[in-house]
Amino acid sequence: MRLPKREVPWEMPEIATSPLILRSSHPLNAETPLSLLAESWVTPQERFFIRTHGNVPELDPLSHRLKIGGRVAEPVELSLEEIRSRFKTRRLAATLICAGNRREELNAVEPVAGMTWHQGAVGNAEWTGVRLADILEWAGAPEGVDLHVVFESADAVAVSGRHTCFGASIPLAKALSPEVLIAFEMNGGPLTREHGFPFRVVVPGYIGARSVKWLTSISIEDQPSDNYFQQNDYKLLPMGMSADDAERGVGVMLGELPVNSALLAPLDGAEVVAGEITLRGYAVAGSGRTVGRVDVSADGGATWQKATLDAHSAWTWTLWRACVTLQPGTAELVVRAWDSAAQTQPEQLETVWNAKGYMNNAWHRVTVTVR
Amino acid sequence: MRLPKREVPWEMPEIATSPLILRSSHPLNAETPLSLLAESWVTPQERFFIRTHGNVPELDPLSHRLKIGGRVAEPVELSLEEIRSRFKTRRLAATLICAGNRREELNAVEPVAGMTWHQGAVGNAEWTGVRLADILEWAGAPEGVDLHVVFESADAVAVSGRHTCFGASIPLAKALSPEVLIAFEMNGGPLTREHGFPFRVVVPGYIGARSVKWLTSISIEDQPSDNYFQQNDYKLLPMGMSADDAERGVGVMLGELPVNSALLAPLDGAEVVAGEITLRGYAVAGSGRTVGRVDVSADGGATWQKATLDAHSAWTWTLWRACVTLQPGTAELVVRAWDSAAQTQPEQLETVWNAKGYMNNAWHRVTVTVR
Repeated sequence: MRLPKREVPWEMPEIATSPLILRSSHPLNAETPLSLLAESWVTPQERFFIRTHGNVPELDPLSHRLKIGGRVAEPVELSLEEIRSRFKTRRLAATLICAGNRREELNAVEPVAGMTWHQGAVGNAEWTGVRLADILEWAGAPEGVDLHVVFESADAVAVSGRHTCFGASIPLAKALSPEVLIAFEMNGGPLTREHGFPFRVVVPGYIGARSVKWLTSISIEDQPSDNYFQQNDYKLLPMGMSADDAERGVGVMLGELPVNSALLAPLDGAEVVAGEITLRGYAVAGSGRTVGRVDVSADGGATWQKATLDAHSAWTWTLWRACVTLQPGTAELVVRAWDSAAQTQPEQLETVWNAKGYMNNAWHRVTVTVR
Repeated sequence: MRLPKREVPWEMPEIATSPLILRSSHPLNAETPLSLLAESWVTPQERFFIRTHGNVPELDPLSHRLKIGGRVAEPVELSLEEIRSRFKTRRLAATLICAGNRREELNAVEPVAGMTWHQGAVGNAEWTGVRLADILEWAGAPEGVDLHVVFESADAVAVSGRHTCFGASIPLAKALSPEVLIAFEMNGGPLTREHGFPFRVVVPGYIGARSVKWLTSISIEDQPSDNYFQQNDYKLLPMGMSADDAERGVGVMLGELPVNSALLAPLDGAEVVAGEITLRGYAVAGSGRTVGRVDVSADGGATWQKATLDAHSAWTWTLWRACVTLQPGTAELVVRAWDSAAQTQPEQLETVWNAKGYMNNAWHRVTVTVR
């Protein structure tokens, strides 16, 4: 399933990143300003965070093919037009979250490796596509609890001096779940180039890295993908291990997301006027659970009150708001969410700190000056 | 679906509770001593914690019938013999955990309502039975994402001056999952009377209260069960609410379990000899996730090391062990688990404290004297 080796074309892609905050140009990575994230339950495509690991491919929607191989009846190929016409179209709202979202906060404990994401490497969209399960059934996929569905991207990535592509895998049982889509539209319009045109995987409830863009192949395998980004990156290292240890393949392979939340308003370091103020933010449950409750504190976690939740499902975030009263001075605002399994977030960044800075779901704290 | 009102027969059931620790006689509640829990991955039936809310029914396996009603093609009944012969027999290892397990620890923050369980209201068994999904399909259950499967027990319970039975419900989607069984055997032998003879529900990954014993009816409904134990009990109350508030139906209705762990050896308050000592305990992930990692600390959480995990699945606990070195003095031993979604347990009991004392999954701490 390995693609032929290609040169990585490091030219700057002609993609407008405004109004995003650019985190790196080569590869292109940008996150959403928190004030914009709070504005709408559906994140517009031009405001949606961008995560890439190599180039941003420019694929011809007429000639591009999706190859399906591995443990299927026989290898097959599908064009965009065939995917659209052969399978029932589905539409699903789902939130994508980068496993490195909120990584920046962890540097306060000890510096971590990886892209410096604040709380904006997250977005919620209405995806239109077909069920991966329908494609797998059509292709004659076997049943088997221990199988994996391996995805490869048409991009070109250089890692550790090797030329490869971005790749990932998910367990077959998850791939057969109805929420997993091969999507060709985002918020009612075609995917833009930076979001995976002409089609991508959308794996709700899993880290964004498994929702492979510019999808070029699907393969059913006995093992998880042997791609660098499945085997060496996106792993949760235990305490005492450095980022280099991930190169040896150690750590827990990430997939499902934990319960998480963040304050979007007011911003950290802001000056606010004493009296009543509305706090706003997002909360997500991850991996098929729902958000059960969101608590906010205006005194660093000494006392708490319940926030009001906006619409949400097992696959989407909820935007929440809560009215608190602030006295002049300094206030530490805190948010923590609870999922439907009564699971909440850890209090301390020290608890969740790991050398590669993944899955930070400690209580989110923001300090404001109250005038 | 309400059963006819009955007098509650409060005679002491003739059930041997040794070697369990009796927590109440009427109704009968008993938990497993921690030293016995640590001895085997499969908990023997006579060592398995007992949770009842009323009497322990003595049902005739020949005449007892399971009624299936609500939104099915037409109401039907099944005898034990019909359940055994009509559907394929399945065997599954699954851990049951009381939602109130570890409640006792919460009293250190502020007293909580409910049965005083330590860390032994948990057990792991090999269940033999048939899939609830197979029974529901046979009965002509409808499809529908928002439906609920309502269970009632043949027991007699008195709550708030009313005579009723124990009842519960789970979402239809969960009921159709292959791990949910109607079980008639436990560890290869018939269910004993206190564990639900002649058959019970087993809902892996959910709080024990949903695994209804002495099952007498299944009904597919538009709403969760209106039974007291679904609507008023087993709810997670937010901070600031008292146990009485649950009578008004507020709080999050519990179902899926969070990640959790406990130390089983050494015991709290024990005296141990300085030098190397092996810590042992259990960890569970809950709700279809798996245990990703277990960390132990011998210095109150300042430093951590990884424990070695025994066998486990998404539906069972893992028994873990870790070797630490203790110096003379006092040592605070701590355990915390991580699930496959990189979700870990909260550090403080204060965080998880709730008036009815459910779902305590704070780090488990044990203090020992080292000689």
